[in-house]
Amino acid sequence: MTGHFSTIVIGAGSGGMTVAVGLANLGRKVALVEGNHVGGDCTNVGCVPSKTLIHLAKKFRPGMNADEVLQEVVCKRDALRDKETEEVEHLENLNFIRGMAKFTAPKKLSVTHDGFSRELTADNIVIATGAHPRMLDIPGLPKERSLTNESLFDLTNAPKHLVIVGAGIIALEMAFAFQKLGTQVTMFALDSRPLMTAIPEASEAIQAELERRRISTHYTATAQSFDESTRTLTIKKGEQLITLHHVDKVLVAIGRVRNINSLGLEQTGVKTDARLGILVNSFGETNVKGVYAIGDVTPTSAFTHSANAQGRRVVQRIAFPYVPLAKKEPLFPNAMFSDPEIAAVGLTEKQLAEYCHPGIIKRIRVDFKTHTDRGYTDGVENGFIIVDAVRLTGQILRATIVGPRASEMISFFTLAMSQKISLYKIYRLVYPYPTYSSGILKVADFFMRETLPNLGKELAAYLKYRFAKPKM
Amino acid sequence: MTGHFSTIVIGAGSGGMTVAVGLANLGRKVALVEGNHVGGDCTNVGCVPSKTLIHLAKKFRPGMNADEVLQEVVCKRDALRDKETEEVEHLENLNFIRGMAKFTAPKKLSVTHDGFSRELTADNIVIATGAHPRMLDIPGLPKERSLTNESLFDLTNAPKHLVIVGAGIIALEMAFAFQKLGTQVTMFALDSRPLMTAIPEASEAIQAELERRRISTHYTATAQSFDESTRTLTIKKGEQLITLHHVDKVLVAIGRVRNINSLGLEQTGVKTDARLGILVNSFGETNVKGVYAIGDVTPTSAFTHSANAQGRRVVQRIAFPYVPLAKKEPLFPNAMFSDPEIAAVGLTEKQLAEYCHPGIIKRIRVDFKTHTDRGYTDGVENGFIIVDAVRLTGQILRATIVGPRASEMISFFTLAMSQKISLYKIYRLVYPYPTYSSGILKVADFFMRETLPNLGKELAAYLKYRFAKPKM
Repeated sequence: MTGHFSTIVIGAGSGGMTVAVGLANLGRKVALVEGNHVGGDCTNVGCVPSKTLIHLAKKFRPGMNADEVLQEVVCKRDALRDKETEEVEHLENLNFIRGMAKFTAPKKLSVTHDGFSRELTADNIVIATGAHPRMLDIPGLPKERSLTNESLFDLTNAPKHLVIVGAGIIALEMAFAFQKLGTQVTMFALDSRPLMTAIPEASEAIQAELERRRISTHYTATAQSFDESTRTLTIKKGEQLITLHHVDKVLVAIGRVRNINSLGLEQTGVKTDARLGILVNSFGETNVKGVYAIGDVTPTSAFTHSANAQGRRVVQRIAFPYVPLAKKEPLFPNAMFSDPEIAAVGLTEKQLAEYCHPGIIKRIRVDFKTHTDRGYTDGVENGFIIVDAVRLTGQILRATIVGPRASEMISFFTLAMSQKISLYKIYRLVYPYPTYSSGILKVADFFMRETLPNLGKELAAYLKYRFAKPKM
Repeated sequence: MTGHFSTIVIGAGSGGMTVAVGLANLGRKVALVEGNHVGGDCTNVGCVPSKTLIHLAKKFRPGMNADEVLQEVVCKRDALRDKETEEVEHLENLNFIRGMAKFTAPKKLSVTHDGFSRELTADNIVIATGAHPRMLDIPGLPKERSLTNESLFDLTNAPKHLVIVGAGIIALEMAFAFQKLGTQVTMFALDSRPLMTAIPEASEAIQAELERRRISTHYTATAQSFDESTRTLTIKKGEQLITLHHVDKVLVAIGRVRNINSLGLEQTGVKTDARLGILVNSFGETNVKGVYAIGDVTPTSAFTHSANAQGRRVVQRIAFPYVPLAKKEPLFPNAMFSDPEIAAVGLTEKQLAEYCHPGIIKRIRVDFKTHTDRGYTDGVENGFIIVDAVRLTGQILRATIVGPRASEMISFFTLAMSQKISLYKIYRLVYPYPTYSSGILKVADFFMRETLPNLGKELAAYLKYRFAKPKM
C-alpha cells in the first residue's frame, strides 16, 4: 500500500494536530501518522490531566477521597482523548494513519503498524514527534515505584509519600497538587533553586510557598540509592547523605528528550543538534526544502501554546506561500500552574544581557499584598509583578507575574510588548477595582514616579547606555 | 477658625483620597474634609469587606463557622481603615479635617463638627461625597431585620435565611457569597433579569448559576408586607402573591442616591440633574470655575476605579493646567465578583445603537467549556467571551466576559480597545495553554474564519453600513 499526500504530519500531538486539521480544513490532502494516542503529551500525559488534577486538588478538603480525584482525572482525560480521536478520524481530507513513521528519503516515509508496513510520499512533511521524559536510574528502586508524567496519570491510588525528582514546571505543579490531596511530598533536584528558568525573585516566592505548605525541598542534591525493604531513599547533597523514609512513589521530572532517533533523519539530510533538536528557522523550515519541524522536537520553548503557534505558521507557510509572514516568531509567554501561578513573557536573563546594557533597564516591582487592595483582601503572601523596562521610554522588555491569576494576566503584557505599548500608555488605562490587574497600574505609577521628577537624569542615562555594548 | 487652601476635597472615599493625596504629594496645600470614616464606601461598606467576604466564602466548607468568617471580614476592614486613616492624618501638606462641609459661596465652605464650626476657603474645591443606598419601606418589617450594604458588614452572625431585594451587582455578589456560607438566599427585584446593565447573555449565564446553587429568584416582583410574628415576607409578582418564610434579614440593594442635598450647592450655582447628579465635563469640571466633582456624585459609572480615574484627571488638571489632557475620558471597564465573575468594557447597548448600524457589527461568542481546554478541565458550565466587532476591520466595540477570571482578563480588551488593536493583530499573539485567555485567540480565530472566506460580502456590508444612520 502506498499513497501520496500534499502534506504528511508525523505525530498527533498539539502541534501536529494544528497543522493537520488546519491544512485539511483548507482542502489539502493530509496524512496524520501517530504511533500512540491522539492528542500527544498535552491531552494524555500533560496539560489536560495535570490541570484537571490541579483544579480538583484545589477543591479537595480533609474527609474527601483522594483516590476518587485521581479516577476523575483519568475519566476526563479519556473522554477528551476519545473526542479528539473521533474528530481526527472523521475529518474530511484528513487520513489518520496509525503507525510508526520512518524516513526512507527526504519526502518518503515507511510506516509500520502491527507488523504491516506501507510507504507514503508527500510534497511536505512536518515532524511533530515531541519528546519523552528523561529517565533516572536510582539503584535499588523497583520499576513499579518509579513514575514519570507518562505513568503518573494512570495512578488510581494517591501515594502517602511521594518523592519528586526535579524542580521544573512539572515537578512543582505536581508537588502542589499532591500536597493538597494529603500526600506527603518531598522534592529534590540538582538545580540550586526551584524553576531555574524564571527570575530569582519568582523562585524565592515559590520556595516560600513550598515551605508554607510543608513540602520538603533539597537542592543541589542527587539520588544515591533506594532500599526496598525499608522503602528508604538516600540522596546526596554535597558530602551530606539524607534519607527519606516510607517512600511510596518516586516521580522523575528532570527534563525531556526529543523524539528524533527512530525517525531515520539520516536519510534526509535534515540538520539536528544534540542539545537543541531539529534545527528550524522561524517558519518551522528545516534545511531540507519541504521538511518542517514544530513543537518539542525543535529548540523552541516546550509548551503546547508554542507548538500550536509554530503549527499555525507552518499552515500559513504551506497553504499561502506567497503571503508574507512576519519574519520574527511571536512572543512566547510561559506559565506554571502552581499555587501561586507564575507567568512570564519577554526576554530571558541571557537575552536581556545580550540585548542591552544593564544601566538602561529600570526594574519595577509591585507586591500584591502591600500595593493592591485585592492582594490584601485575599491575603496573598507571595505574589508580585516585576517589569523590566527601558529607562525614559518605558518600553517593556519582560514581565514576570507571581500570583493567583498570573497565567491570565500575562496576556496583557504579551499584547503590550507585541504592539510596543509603553508604560506611559498603560498608565492611562482604567483597571477594574479590586483586581490583581490594578497592580499593572501600580507598575506604571511607580515608573512615572521614578521617571518624571528625574527627567534629566533619566535622559542622560538613556543616552549613555542606549548604544552601549551590553556587559557580557 | 478659618483657613485658605490650594484645594479642598469634600469626602475621603476612593476618589477624594486620590485627589487629596495626589495633590499633597505634589506639594499643594490640601484640606480633606470627611464627616464619617476615612476610605469611604469602598473601604468601609463596599469593595474591601465584600471582596474579603467573597474570598473567604469561596474557601468555606461545611463544618466551618460562618460567624467567624463575618468577624474576620470586620477585622480586615477595620485594619485597612486604620491604616488609611493613619496615612491621611500624617501626610505632609494634607490637612485632614473631620466634619460636615457645606458651601456658603462658590469657593467657601462652612465645616461643622460636634457643634463647632469653621470656615474654609480654597482656589479649588472638589466634591467627592459619593452616594448612599436607596431605602425601601416594607410595611411591618422591623428596622433590625433590614440591612443595606452600610450595615451588612457589621453582622457577626450569618442569617439562616437572607432575602435580598435587587438584582444588581451588590445584590448578586452577596447572594453568591452568603449562599456559600450556608445561608438560604432568596432574591427578588423589580428588574426583569439579573444584572440589567449587562448584555442578556450574561444575565442568562448568571441566572443559570443562581439556579444551580438553589438561590431562589423572583423578577418583576415588589415587596408587599412583612409579618414579624411568623417572619413571613409577602411579595407581589403581577397578580400573584408569593410568601417567603422564616426570613431573618432583608438586604436592600436597589440602587444608590447621590449625596448632594446637604452640600448647600444652591450657594454655588453648580448645575445638577435630578437623575444624573452633579454635571461635569470629562475633566471633572462643573459649570463653576474651580469647582470639580468626581465619583458617585457625578453621572460617571459608580465604581471605585472610575472615581480613581476621574480623581487622577482632576489632579492633572489642577496641578498641570497647561499640559494637554486627552479630551475623552478613558474607557471604564466594569466587573462583578459573583461566581462566575462578569466583566465588560466598551459601548453599552444604548451607545452601540447610537454609534453604528447593527448591520456593521459582527458578534463573536466563544464558550469556555466547549471552545477552550481549560474550561473543559475546570468544568466551567456557564462562561463565555462575547465580542462585538466591526465587520471587515475587526475593530472591537465591546467585550463581555463571564467566567472564573473575567475581572482579570477584561484589561486585555481595555488595552486593545484603547490602542485600537484589531482582532487581526490579536490573532497573531500566543496565549499560555491551558488558560481561559486562550479563548481570546478563539475569538480572533472565529472572526478570521467568518471574514477571510467571505471578503467580498464583508467588504460590501462594511461599505453599505459604514456611514449608514444607526437604527434608533
